[in-house]
Amino acid sequence: MEDAIRNFVEQGEAYRWSGVETKTYNAAESQSRGMSKQILFEADENLPSELRYFESEPGGHSALERHHHVHAVLVLRGSGSVMLGDHVRRIRAFDTVYVPPDTWHQFYADADSYLGFLCLVNCDRDRPERASESDIAGLNQIAAIRDVIRF
Amino acid sequence: MEDAIRNFVEQGEAYRWSGVETKTYNAAESQSRGMSKQILFEADENLPSELRYFESEPGGHSALERHHHVHAVLVLRGSGSVMLGDHVRRIRAFDTVYVPPDTWHQFYADADSYLGFLCLVNCDRDRPERASESDIAGLNQIAAIRDVIRF
Repeated sequence: MEDAIRNFVEQGEAYRWSGVETKTYNAAESQSRGMSKQILFEADENLPSELRYFESEPGGHSALERHHHVHAVLVLRGSGSVMLGDHVRRIRAFDTVYVPPDTWHQFYADADSYLGFLCLVNCDRDRPERASESDIAGLNQIAAIRDVIRF
Repeated sequence: MEDAIRNFVEQGEAYRWSGVETKTYNAAESQSRGMSKQILFEADENLPSELRYFESEPGGHSALERHHHVHAVLVLRGSGSVMLGDHVRRIRAFDTVYVPPDTWHQFYADADSYLGFLCLVNCDRDRPERASESDIAGLNQIAAIRDVIRF
């Protein structure tokens, strides 16, 4: 029963949990920058979903991607913005974001703030699709997001 | 797309989200005290889980209950304690708690602090079982939890 509880720990500037492994991403392969991931609850036979914590360093961002599965996101710390479809919106701690199926999205930390968010997904899900050159050409036609997206 | 984002709002002392209904409990019927519930993400065809936010006023507590479905909990604010099986443990903001199947559990806010926590559940789940008099007699045999449980 003791391992049922994982204590939150601040490790320097980063948010960490006891007994939870932190994955950092290779920037080139992931098309993200300054991002890390911790799986707070893995899916099991009793819960068909996974709750992950993603953290971006100040100025960092997630990969530009879309997929059929949805994301249910709750910002846990800091501030930044999210590109969702053809919109960009400000987000800050405790705001929630629902990323619908097949919708381009990307999360950005402000230059002077970490952005940490919980992301809930179905355990049974498709792999993310990254933007191709023609996708990017299409996205660049949308004035509201043209200067925001990073890849 | 605009309603994909729900802004966090502090309403007096309480944590609220734009466009999310707050349910408060009748203390006698719920066997809880000072608790409210907000469903941040309802289950849908793409996500078979529900993410709820429960908040207890200072000194309040959830119902003493068990059920076959599991809870994946992340504390969002404040401090308190949790009774889980035959243990009581301190919890504070951002600690996580996994409530296994068929395990008696109860959450308590400290007397001088709100306790707010996210609780992730399978959308397909059994109803909670409340403690009967004989359950309570059994629980009262356990020294570690005898003075803590409330019903």
